[in-house]
Amino acid sequence: MKNALIVGATGFGGLGLIEILLRHPGITIQQLIARRDVGMRINEVFPHLTGFCELPVQGTDEINFSDIDIAFFSTPDRAGMTLIEKFIAKSIPVIDFSGDFRFNSTDDYAVYAHNKGMETTHHAPSTLPASVYGLPELYSEKIRHARIVGNPGCFAICMILGLLPAVKEKLIDADTIVCDGKTGVSGAGKNPGEANFYPQRYEDVNTYREGKHQHLVEVENVLQSVGGNHKIFFVPHIVPLNRGILVTAYGKARKGIRTKDVEEIYRQFYKDAPFILIVNRSPHTTDVRGSNRCEIRAMVDERTGMLFITSTIDNLVKGQSGNAVQCANLMLGFDETAGLLVPPFYP
Amino acid sequence: MKNALIVGATGFGGLGLIEILLRHPGITIQQLIARRDVGMRINEVFPHLTGFCELPVQGTDEINFSDIDIAFFSTPDRAGMTLIEKFIAKSIPVIDFSGDFRFNSTDDYAVYAHNKGMETTHHAPSTLPASVYGLPELYSEKIRHARIVGNPGCFAICMILGLLPAVKEKLIDADTIVCDGKTGVSGAGKNPGEANFYPQRYEDVNTYREGKHQHLVEVENVLQSVGGNHKIFFVPHIVPLNRGILVTAYGKARKGIRTKDVEEIYRQFYKDAPFILIVNRSPHTTDVRGSNRCEIRAMVDERTGMLFITSTIDNLVKGQSGNAVQCANLMLGFDETAGLLVPPFYP
Amino acid sequence: MKNALIVGATGFGGLGLIEILLRHPGITIQQLIARRDVGMRINEVFPHLTGFCELPVQGTDEINFSDIDIAFFSTPDRAGMTLIEKFIAKSIPVIDFSGDFRFNSTDDYAVYAHNKGMETTHHAPSTLPASVYGLPELYSEKIRHARIVGNPGCFAICMILGLLPAVKEKLIDADTIVCDGKTGVSGAGKNPGEANFYPQRYEDVNTYREGKHQHLVEVENVLQSVGGNHKIFFVPHIVPLNRGILVTAYGKARKGIRTKDVEEIYRQFYKDAPFILIVNRSPHTTDVRGSNRCEIRAMVDERTGMLFITSTIDNLVKGQSGNAVQCANLMLGFDETAGLLVPPFYP
Amino acid sequence: MKNALIVGATGFGGLGLIEILLRHPGITIQQLIARRDVGMRINEVFPHLTGFCELPVQGTDEINFSDIDIAFFSTPDRAGMTLIEKFIAKSIPVIDFSGDFRFNSTDDYAVYAHNKGMETTHHAPSTLPASVYGLPELYSEKIRHARIVGNPGCFAICMILGLLPAVKEKLIDADTIVCDGKTGVSGAGKNPGEANFYPQRYEDVNTYREGKHQHLVEVENVLQSVGGNHKIFFVPHIVPLNRGILVTAYGKARKGIRTKDVEEIYRQFYKDAPFILIVNRSPHTTDVRGSNRCEIRAMVDERTGMLFITSTIDNLVKGQSGNAVQCANLMLGFDETAGLLVPPFYP
Repeated sequence: MKNALIVGATGFGGLGLIEILLRHPGITIQQLIARRDVGMRINEVFPHLTGFCELPVQGTDEINFSDIDIAFFSTPDRAGMTLIEKFIAKSIPVIDFSGDFRFNSTDDYAVYAHNKGMETTHHAPSTLPASVYGLPELYSEKIRHARIVGNPGCFAICMILGLLPAVKEKLIDADTIVCDGKTGVSGAGKNPGEANFYPQRYEDVNTYREGKHQHLVEVENVLQSVGGNHKIFFVPHIVPLNRGILVTAYGKARKGIRTKDVEEIYRQFYKDAPFILIVNRSPHTTDVRGSNRCEIRAMVDERTGMLFITSTIDNLVKGQSGNAVQCANLMLGFDETAGLLVPPFYP
Repeated sequence: MKNALIVGATGFGGLGLIEILLRHPGITIQQLIARRDVGMRINEVFPHLTGFCELPVQGTDEINFSDIDIAFFSTPDRAGMTLIEKFIAKSIPVIDFSGDFRFNSTDDYAVYAHNKGMETTHHAPSTLPASVYGLPELYSEKIRHARIVGNPGCFAICMILGLLPAVKEKLIDADTIVCDGKTGVSGAGKNPGEANFYPQRYEDVNTYREGKHQHLVEVENVLQSVGGNHKIFFVPHIVPLNRGILVTAYGKARKGIRTKDVEEIYRQFYKDAPFILIVNRSPHTTDVRGSNRCEIRAMVDERTGMLFITSTIDNLVKGQSGNAVQCANLMLGFDETAGLLVPPFYP
Repeated sequence: MKNALIVGATGFGGLGLIEILLRHPGITIQQLIARRDVGMRINEVFPHLTGFCELPVQGTDEINFSDIDIAFFSTPDRAGMTLIEKFIAKSIPVIDFSGDFRFNSTDDYAVYAHNKGMETTHHAPSTLPASVYGLPELYSEKIRHARIVGNPGCFAICMILGLLPAVKEKLIDADTIVCDGKTGVSGAGKNPGEANFYPQRYEDVNTYREGKHQHLVEVENVLQSVGGNHKIFFVPHIVPLNRGILVTAYGKARKGIRTKDVEEIYRQFYKDAPFILIVNRSPHTTDVRGSNRCEIRAMVDERTGMLFITSTIDNLVKGQSGNAVQCANLMLGFDETAGLLVPPFYP
Repeated sequence: MKNALIVGATGFGGLGLIEILLRHPGITIQQLIARRDVGMRINEVFPHLTGFCELPVQGTDEINFSDIDIAFFSTPDRAGMTLIEKFIAKSIPVIDFSGDFRFNSTDDYAVYAHNKGMETTHHAPSTLPASVYGLPELYSEKIRHARIVGNPGCFAICMILGLLPAVKEKLIDADTIVCDGKTGVSGAGKNPGEANFYPQRYEDVNTYREGKHQHLVEVENVLQSVGGNHKIFFVPHIVPLNRGILVTAYGKARKGIRTKDVEEIYRQFYKDAPFILIVNRSPHTTDVRGSNRCEIRAMVDERTGMLFITSTIDNLVKGQSGNAVQCANLMLGFDETAGLLVPPFYP
């Protein structure tokens, strides 16, 4: 058994990790660390965990570095970059959930940070060149040998997985890509605020950060790495869903290409990806809720010549903790799917 | 006072009319007609109407044509075309909620009907040339003199109002327009079925009729009439909202145009439209719920050169009964806003 | 026209008042006062009010006392008791939304305050003897002549209206009354917190303050005033509803009494109450949402000898701002229903 | 490995079984039978099952009785009684989800059937004396040896588990018990109808079958078997929840008894019940959603002398398929918890 440490255990990211690791055949949760709720047991924070996980929540200064095989930083932006040094010193591999290690240059980080309205200086710049973007569908080899993995943003991973084959195989006009995203409310995290205020959200749809969402940097970086020089226009929407992201991406299709070709290319591209499901019906967020699956449909509309791709994930699983465990599996030598083969939760 | 007849009184369209006409200063509800629930009082069908409207629901064969100044057909597709003759004979003007009278040619009707999976032959083809598309923001003069008005589809009116100024003023590349629509569940009407099955819909988002929604014919017709020769790619999504439609439309912006120019053009275009609100913040469906308002924001994303327009309406009001009453006001000589100046319902 | 001042204009109570007064034939909103959002226009706080009410939000120190005919304190507990002096000095009648003026003795107030976990000393004790509990169905004459009205708690008014006839006419065993209440999330007000955190509330039901809800004091006071010496056991539940309260009250029925007798007594008791609807079908919160109505059904279960009464209101209307306007109508000499005869909002 | 047959595989009960059996260490799904969707694969009916279970749906006439160790009848009332004979003939033990085998007498069945508005004649009366009520917390020994188990109603099991210790230990006055139940919409099953019509249910609370719910017969039978002669008054409510039942039961407490005594009695009573969690905080449906847990809190309100018990389950798990698998585990010799130790799904 390998031992895992979770920093940021009392947020939705930490909770997601706990739930997955409880059923993982090869990883044990060793210690739960957080800033809030220190001194409580985790099942006092999340009563549904009673009987399943009752570990104490400990403070950052109580981290026990011995016997840790992997650390998950399910922490807000800019927390990981101050914690990382001690983990490097102890040779503990780290998977971080924020934007801190998603970029190989301080410049890219600065754009990300700026779009999110944060300070733009990175405090551990020397870690960036070797950090790996946690996208197992593209970078599994790099992840296997990584010491620091930046777990992707939830919207980013949904957009990237949807667009990758189209961009790589040049099925889509680089100059016309638009992504229209819909996210559930849980994406705003565990702190009560306007973004998750029930009387507003139970019956509201709206756009936000139009064209300026911080995940765009990640998306464009990855697409560029497969040959596209795309500038993507992305408009996220909040819908009255708790869990789930669904993105519909649009762009002019390469002349002459047809749906059956596109589908075949998608199936081929993802033939070894255990969590990607290519479908030829309308994707639903309920097809993936609670699971690590990403469901994708790609089609050509012959009337208008548009290629459109719909991809959907559970923002808290493939968009967060599930993808992180998938990366951890690669890093620790487990089967990529260990602990993750659970059907979606329905209804 | 003018007297109104409502055919199809027990659906959501009929209910919407009742609620508006109850507060209308110049129109009285004279008779409620339906196929279902005949013999009940309307407040047995809709208990919340108790004390406000308790008229009996009568059958189609019980219509009393005398003293009717206007008839609303809040009926399914293909019902109005069989009813219309008697109303023409009595010189009663009609506003129909289905696609039966939204087109001036049987050809256009056939495309609409085909997309909706219905029989395509129109049974009252002679009525089509003189029927008027019920879009007061564009055709108010025609509506004033119309005898038959085809009330627009809910998605159609939201898309048209959002795109009209951009298309007319050629702010957008005709060849690249994509509309991504989100609709609430009430759009599927009052018959229980898969589309409004709670255990599926309370936490689901999905696309449907991608590129083939029946409202596209209307949208392209109207945009063509102002000079565009647009083929629009439209993907509707169902979200766990009860009321509300929000459409984000995308297309390449005319070179050099900026947000402030676009906004000014939109404000100018709609300066006399009492229900259009041009805003420069993110539109929310909660800004319009329960009201006849259409809220629109148009912007240019300079990084990608995209123009995008977000428009939102309440599908049951501006998308249905509210718009119908707005048309009726014009036809009967009332102020366009009579009975309709009610703030949105919040929270 | 009479002029109204609203203190606490930016909460849900203030918003409810604005929405009602906008359609009130005899009351104009003169000034909006709040602690938060001072300097903004009210439609920047509540965008849906754009075009309907765009008054500025002013600070407590900017209150203009001249030409005010009535003041609404839609303020939290313990705010009104510090504001009241100036209004007394200017002879301006006040309707307060908190518990500050719901009791005629400091002792009762202290119990209320204790149950809510607040400081128990009242800062304006001299105002209590003459303050009137704002229950128009019982105290309309007192309210007509009141200078200070304590608007009831939302759960209190729903329980009282349900139980009043049964208690007064001794239809129910005083020793066995249990009230099981269900409330929507909007009852927790406009500040984001655990009680209205979407990811928790969208799919949760739970009890809270079992047997200790602060509204019990009001309920027992009023019932005592009609002859009961009841101790009521009340368990409130939060359900994933936005608006609405539904209370089912239970107790042993007086021997021999039958449903039709009970119904008749209820109809008789409320024959002059314009907002009470006695029904003999299962009440639904959707029958009252958005309206000032209270719907009540009372029945005897012959198998067990239980009398049970279900009452339902919209917590933001009859449970708050609607009831306050009903009181204001009495105080200012308007018809009791002025501005309040609006059908429920459905669906 | 034991082989299971599921009849009624395409409803929510069948789906629940599939989801649990997929992770069961000792039971394999052998065949899926249904009336609807015959000829489809189960993942065409429930797309989220793709990759996890893709068995064909077969008709009742296609049942292969060989190699079946247990049969689940997740069928509507009155289906099981016509199917049972063939299973008896083949010595296959059966767990039925309807009321068909919950009673040992045709008289009790007739009351149940009458309350549900069905035909009251039982077609397999000879099976009733030996059929066992599937309540493992009380009848585990009987279930181990049963050939036919009647899986309890969802409301019944929640009420029984909450009341059992209080009734058995005479903590509560038999004459005053009231149960106020709240259920989510999924309890109405998988056929679209009024009970699960989204535009009605998303924001509605109402009572139904007040005092006449069909599950009462089961509840009173079981309580009688432990010594109570109780007539219980039960009012179910539908709330805008998808999954979950929460019941608050009320009755006069035995004189002098206190919360800590009650709690101790409850803990003692359920000390060997692996799925019962006794808590001293407010139960939430989110504490049990997706799990086989029943969470219970029992308290005395000293002010009024009332004992109240809140119990909560997931209606689709402990209220249906989870409890059935718990019974199957006993019948087949597995650990009672096999396949069922999954933490609740949150958020």
